[in-house]
Amino acid sequence: MLKGHQTGHLPCTSLHLPLRVDVFSASLAEEGAAEGASERKQMRREAEEKQQRKKQQRKQMRKESRLEFVNGGWCMSDEAATHYSAVIDQMTIGLRFLNETFGACGRPRVAWHIDPFGHAREHASMFAQMGFDGFFFGRLDYQDRARRMRDKEQELLWRASDSLTPPMADLFTGILPNGYNPPEGFCWDQLCSDPPIRDDPDLEDYNVDDVVGRFLVIANSQSTVYKTNHIIMTMGSDFQYENANLWYKNLDKLIHYVNAQQANGSKVNVLYSTPSCYLQELHRANLTWPLKTDDFFPYADDAHDFWTGYFTSRPALKRYERISNSNLQTCNQLEVLGGLTSRKGPFGEGDSQTMKKAMAVAQHHDAVSGTEKQHVANDYARKLANGWQHCQVLVSNSLAALSGLSAERIYCDNLNVSVCHLTESSKKFSVNVYNPLARPVTWPVRLPVNGTAYSVSDASGKVVHVSQATHEVRRQRGFAVNELVFQVQAPPLGYTTYTVALIQDGPPPAPAQQRFLQVTFDHETGLISSLNNLETKQSIKLTQNFYWYNASDGNNVASRQPSGAYIFRPNSSTPVIISQTAKTEIIKTSVVQEVRQWFAPWVSQVVRLYADSRALELEWTVGPVPIDDSVGKEVITRLDTSIKTAEYFYTDSNGREVLQRKKDFRPTWNLKQSEPIAGNYYPINSRAYIKDDVDQLTVVTDRSQGGGSIQNGSLEIMLHRRLLHDDFRGVGEPLNEISGIFPDGLVVRGRLLLTLDPPQTAADTHRPLAEGMVLQPLLTFTDGDLKPNTQLEAVPVRFSGLLAALPPAVHLLTLSQWDEDSVLLRLEHQYQSSESKVSSQPVTVNLQKLFSTLEVLGVAELNLSANQWKDEMKRFDWTPEKGTGHQCCVS
Amino acid sequence: MLKGHQTGHLPCTSLHLPLRVDVFSASLAEEGAAEGASERKQMRREAEEKQQRKKQQRKQMRKESRLEFVNGGWCMSDEAATHYSAVIDQMTIGLRFLNETFGACGRPRVAWHIDPFGHAREHASMFAQMGFDGFFFGRLDYQDRARRMRDKEQELLWRASDSLTPPMADLFTGILPNGYNPPEGFCWDQLCSDPPIRDDPDLEDYNVDDVVGRFLVIANSQSTVYKTNHIIMTMGSDFQYENANLWYKNLDKLIHYVNAQQANGSKVNVLYSTPSCYLQELHRANLTWPLKTDDFFPYADDAHDFWTGYFTSRPALKRYERISNSNLQTCNQLEVLGGLTSRKGPFGEGDSQTMKKAMAVAQHHDAVSGTEKQHVANDYARKLANGWQHCQVLVSNSLAALSGLSAERIYCDNLNVSVCHLTESSKKFSVNVYNPLARPVTWPVRLPVNGTAYSVSDASGKVVHVSQATHEVRRQRGFAVNELVFQVQAPPLGYTTYTVALIQDGPPPAPAQQRFLQVTFDHETGLISSLNNLETKQSIKLTQNFYWYNASDGNNVASRQPSGAYIFRPNSSTPVIISQTAKTEIIKTSVVQEVRQWFAPWVSQVVRLYADSRALELEWTVGPVPIDDSVGKEVITRLDTSIKTAEYFYTDSNGREVLQRKKDFRPTWNLKQSEPIAGNYYPINSRAYIKDDVDQLTVVTDRSQGGGSIQNGSLEIMLHRRLLHDDFRGVGEPLNEISGIFPDGLVVRGRLLLTLDPPQTAADTHRPLAEGMVLQPLLTFTDGDLKPNTQLEAVPVRFSGLLAALPPAVHLLTLSQWDEDSVLLRLEHQYQSSESKVSSQPVTVNLQKLFSTLEVLGVAELNLSANQWKDEMKRFDWTPEKGTGHQCCVS
Repeated sequence: MLKGHQTGHLPCTSLHLPLRVDVFSASLAEEGAAEGASERKQMRREAEEKQQRKKQQRKQMRKESRLEFVNGGWCMSDEAATHYSAVIDQMTIGLRFLNETFGACGRPRVAWHIDPFGHAREHASMFAQMGFDGFFFGRLDYQDRARRMRDKEQELLWRASDSLTPPMADLFTGILPNGYNPPEGFCWDQLCSDPPIRDDPDLEDYNVDDVVGRFLVIANSQSTVYKTNHIIMTMGSDFQYENANLWYKNLDKLIHYVNAQQANGSKVNVLYSTPSCYLQELHRANLTWPLKTDDFFPYADDAHDFWTGYFTSRPALKRYERISNSNLQTCNQLEVLGGLTSRKGPFGEGDSQTMKKAMAVAQHHDAVSGTEKQHVANDYARKLANGWQHCQVLVSNSLAALSGLSAERIYCDNLNVSVCHLTESSKKFSVNVYNPLARPVTWPVRLPVNGTAYSVSDASGKVVHVSQATHEVRRQRGFAVNELVFQVQAPPLGYTTYTVALIQDGPPPAPAQQRFLQVTFDHETGLISSLNNLETKQSIKLTQNFYWYNASDGNNVASRQPSGAYIFRPNSSTPVIISQTAKTEIIKTSVVQEVRQWFAPWVSQVVRLYADSRALELEWTVGPVPIDDSVGKEVITRLDTSIKTAEYFYTDSNGREVLQRKKDFRPTWNLKQSEPIAGNYYPINSRAYIKDDVDQLTVVTDRSQGGGSIQNGSLEIMLHRRLLHDDFRGVGEPLNEISGIFPDGLVVRGRLLLTLDPPQTAADTHRPLAEGMVLQPLLTFTDGDLKPNTQLEAVPVRFSGLLAALPPAVHLLTLSQWDEDSVLLRLEHQYQSSESKVSSQPVTVNLQKLFSTLEVLGVAELNLSANQWKDEMKRFDWTPEKGTGHQCCVS
Repeated sequence: MLKGHQTGHLPCTSLHLPLRVDVFSASLAEEGAAEGASERKQMRREAEEKQQRKKQQRKQMRKESRLEFVNGGWCMSDEAATHYSAVIDQMTIGLRFLNETFGACGRPRVAWHIDPFGHAREHASMFAQMGFDGFFFGRLDYQDRARRMRDKEQELLWRASDSLTPPMADLFTGILPNGYNPPEGFCWDQLCSDPPIRDDPDLEDYNVDDVVGRFLVIANSQSTVYKTNHIIMTMGSDFQYENANLWYKNLDKLIHYVNAQQANGSKVNVLYSTPSCYLQELHRANLTWPLKTDDFFPYADDAHDFWTGYFTSRPALKRYERISNSNLQTCNQLEVLGGLTSRKGPFGEGDSQTMKKAMAVAQHHDAVSGTEKQHVANDYARKLANGWQHCQVLVSNSLAALSGLSAERIYCDNLNVSVCHLTESSKKFSVNVYNPLARPVTWPVRLPVNGTAYSVSDASGKVVHVSQATHEVRRQRGFAVNELVFQVQAPPLGYTTYTVALIQDGPPPAPAQQRFLQVTFDHETGLISSLNNLETKQSIKLTQNFYWYNASDGNNVASRQPSGAYIFRPNSSTPVIISQTAKTEIIKTSVVQEVRQWFAPWVSQVVRLYADSRALELEWTVGPVPIDDSVGKEVITRLDTSIKTAEYFYTDSNGREVLQRKKDFRPTWNLKQSEPIAGNYYPINSRAYIKDDVDQLTVVTDRSQGGGSIQNGSLEIMLHRRLLHDDFRGVGEPLNEISGIFPDGLVVRGRLLLTLDPPQTAADTHRPLAEGMVLQPLLTFTDGDLKPNTQLEAVPVRFSGLLAALPPAVHLLTLSQWDEDSVLLRLEHQYQSSESKVSSQPVTVNLQKLFSTLEVLGVAELNLSANQWKDEMKRFDWTPEKGTGHQCCVS
């Protein structure tokens, strides 16, 4: 799988002079990811065509350290809106491409996130586990940078997990001096306007002396804010090196003329270098480095310019990306479980690769982040939809192989808007429920129907449910007037089948009895007023409502910064309440109790309690956000509780470990807060919570969102944004989502799951809850009766790929076909150390007894990104300064 | 000198299908000439460095007809404001560079003027005499193009001289279909916005079918307006091919996919081609071609968009370019006459090459044309000044070698504004007068002085003149209060020396007696009222005055076109008179009679008659043109006479042959006149005249200017332009000349020489007059007494390089050192056939008896551009259609 490996020092150029300037001339262009994939495809094809000629040349350059790949993911991922599962996947396919194209010498040593706008601790942890020796990025809070420049702390050791034993998640981290740009006055691309070096003395605009002089000033100045006598200069920027000759011609001259000054006593030596070579010199310096244990959120590049809007921007795309990840994992698993037939079977040629690439490019920091132009966002969504089409063929093939049922499978991808032509019109159909989790799942199925009563039979043919369908209240796009709801159970890594049949009339519903939670409503306002845990007898006051912040339009004395796709800047710290009261309707069935709330024509909510659920579900629907008053709006929901939070709250990092946040506070510098709302927002990828000694209210989200705790006891989450101005960070458009089917503005629906627990055991609830939110069952439908193909030895209606469910602490992160003979398997302990007395304990899994249908012939352990054998990982060791490092995060 | 030669057919690709599309992928970038020279220098240096590697490659490509040089001049010259002498020079050094770098296989076969805005017949004549097989250009009058498209006459045979025997000046001429641009939708440079060809069917924006379809429509449409089954497509534009891969990648695909359609019956074949290969196919077609004998002036690209403003734009630059040419010829001659010492002598290292290049690049169609930005115009002037500095060293060395006088020579380059520190302050100085003409010259010297009386002694020491200096009335920039005027005589291709000494008092001036001309003034208005030729007893009524046209600002119903650097568009056909009357002053000396006229604070004139001159001199001073009324002004002088012109008038072509013009008329199509003034303007490079059977009034100009004859008997010449708007043709600036020494706007001074003769003999006067205007004596000064170095055998004060003056018909066009052993000599018959009974006759010159100090060891005749032996010139022969060709021009 890996074509070789390389150890030991790189053959980097070096010269021992007091100041050495490492010039990075590599193309820093990492934008335009929407076209990135096709370009990459083209690149691969060309690479193949010219392989004989070019490959040797590149290998040689790599060997000489003249060419180096950095980062190596399929894209440079966003860090605030991504889930670790998808990030690991995208890194894996990018690094695999490099490995297969260039061999082990093409393996990146350095992670390189020069543009992402805020940096997640979980990303650093992943990079460490992927074998990177170091990490460089460009953007951090301007106050943070100023402090670090003063204290020479722009290079540091990031301890990126409080669960993994150091140095497992330690990552050397460097902050680039000029973002991803050259020093001012030294930009020589076709997109730049700095004068080229004219070194012919006959030319009237001969400027060598001027250029050399300016360069020496900059180099010496830069050397005062870094620790060693090596400094970095990045020579490139967005979309550059299309015509590389311009850059190299000038860099050649620059290096020549600056170094020529050594004859006159200059102590500055400039050389072409690479991030790895630079890192190697830092390592050789054998210094100690300040330790950092928190993260780099939120990011502000000036007092009123907090990049906290994109935590929520394009909420529909963010949800589509998340559900696509779930579908991709299902696709990957069924590719393994179904065997060869899944890729070429009765329904044609299916593949998971298209979806893998679509998901990978969707991780880009201008993709799932929501910071791309509308047409680019459309393209990302189109790619995901196309990927899913390819996967659907694979899934159909696989399920046919596993079940022996060759009937056409129908995918109702629009159930989120209550559209499914089959269920709307059929009198009898079956539902295959595939569960991608490694443990059994119970799941409420909601189907748009036009009948009023249905019987539901399980895999053994037993009627498990006879239901009155309730009238459909969610914003409907199809023709269904009613909604049928019933609970299904599916086995680990497998499926079961239910049959649904229209019946004349059913018994009146027996209302569900809640076992775990109770929610009360204020009869006057129609709002939630308290939440009780029936098991633990906990109770908190809880008021929940919807508000919007008035987005700045840039007409402001303090700053002309408007809210935009990146930036969140409310014009007032007090959000506008949408309605003091909600009109309500109560519906009770045997499965669920619902209170339906209407706040405004564009804001509604269904509050649900399923009989057997430990979570209260808030299904919100927001949109079209009105803008006829010419005011951009940033819509939040806010939970006001009696919990004594003392200014702390907690958010997850990329859906994995949880970090502590404190209002108007940063762990590593003395914050001067200038935006009381935007400056207190943090990314929420999967959950956030507030707590005191007694109560912890956890909110599990269905997508990445921004949120904060502005008042004690309060937690707010931004749901939707509709803005009228560009924020001058490169999108060039206001974030105002309008499309053919939403001509008046986008309507977004989502779910929040609330749990109330004692802090000590809260993780035992929210971890599995969030796991189930990320990987949810896939429903496929077949019309009429099932007709098994009796010639196949198959399990028609129920199947599990596992011999048994995995222990609660173990999450099956990846099960994916690697090549014809091997499978990539990732199992993770999904509990942070010490968050649960029970679940945080170490756990053992026997791989030989894992799968029900697959025989494990051999196992080899890899790094997290699967591009290096685990036992060959040899990362640089770095020594932290004593006394540094802030004990943070989960207490 | 020539490294070889190539004859016979080119190895062009061809394929016999009904329609063959010749794609030219060569870089068409020919702009930015201000940087052109240094780029070229760089190019040459790089060419040297990489010679071993690249030269063979290029030669090979050239051999395979994959790489071809077109045109090959040092620049692509302007055709309306250039003098043939400078154009021949610039072509010569450009073609020499190609010859020396690439050998004979690098010789361009095709002249290529894709951008110049109007095409001069003399240019075509020169190209023919330079051995070009054909000529392609991009711009012609929109009405002309429409007619030629209809009649398939966009390819034609241009008979470019009525003096040279056909086919000596016949030039096959092709008009490109899209100027110098690709067809619409097919631009694939980094500067273009057309989508690239995406040929991966998996891409959602796969567009091969669309591109191929559009291309076939365009190709078939284009084929209907050309004669043969070959058509041209130019694939490039301004500033393109900086990143050639973009173009070639797409062209490769285009050719592949369009030709693939042949399998489906398409009759279109596309191939990479070159202008020569295309031309060869046209020649092989063996057709007859329409004959054209007039020129392509004026050029309009729409009804109100006549490019006739640039005939006059930047009049000071146009004059500086013209005097620089005179200085360069002097420099060239003295480099030959002075021998090796001239390049390295007592005054240091001198060279003519810097000036040659400066002059060459100044011929660019955005240089002397006046259509560049102000800072680029400044740079052209700077280059000329710098070139002249190099030449001054050479001239000083040469004169020192020839004369044995090693005293420092002082160059008074600012005599045009009456500044010369030496003459202003010295009590005794000598003036060396070098005459670059091949015949003796008489010349009035005007020097700024502060004394009142001076004696002037000739080379033999004899006092030839004792003069009262008259007070200086011209706009003075120096400290002189008086002006000393005296006539000098200089020998052919040689010099003489005068000594000037301050004396206490001289005799009162004996007024000069006019022998040849008489001019009368109206006592009431102060204006000229008539002109009489005393020899021929001719007399005409003549009124001369100054006017300005109100420049369009673009606020106009008919068109939004303003006047600008290129475009002349008066807002009214009636010019505004500056003053009905002139204040006058009369001054008579023994040398000259002057009437000084003041029309306005910014318009004045000196009318001069020298005793022995056949021309009336009008020295006009215009500027700063006032714009405080926010009106752009285009200043003309108009001569209204009693001559019965019947709507005809005459202008020269690049200073050589003369063409007939007729109001509101074009010889080759039925003109629909839409701009009664601008559409009747033509370039005047050296002279214009109006005539009837009896009288011919000729005006010889000192630079290129625009002019017309709007009313019968009238001739107007545009002198200066000051405009407030850009004209949208690429300059991006209004033509509003302001500089450090002219903060209120540029002041321009110039001279018009008027002669009145019978038409039959007028050329005998205006030819030598214009010759003397183009090549004028160079004055150098030495302070105090001359001190001959008696050790040298030299001719200290008088020298002629010729054994005898050449016959009047023979102009010594070029005498220039070619290499150590050889000299480039050009002699020309300067009379158009039949314009003079006497002077137009053939004439013989004996080269062996030409030079006084040089021995002619051998002679080899070359083509006009000196890049091919005359006897090896083998141009394509073309057959004109019978009955075509308009008999025009000089009758």
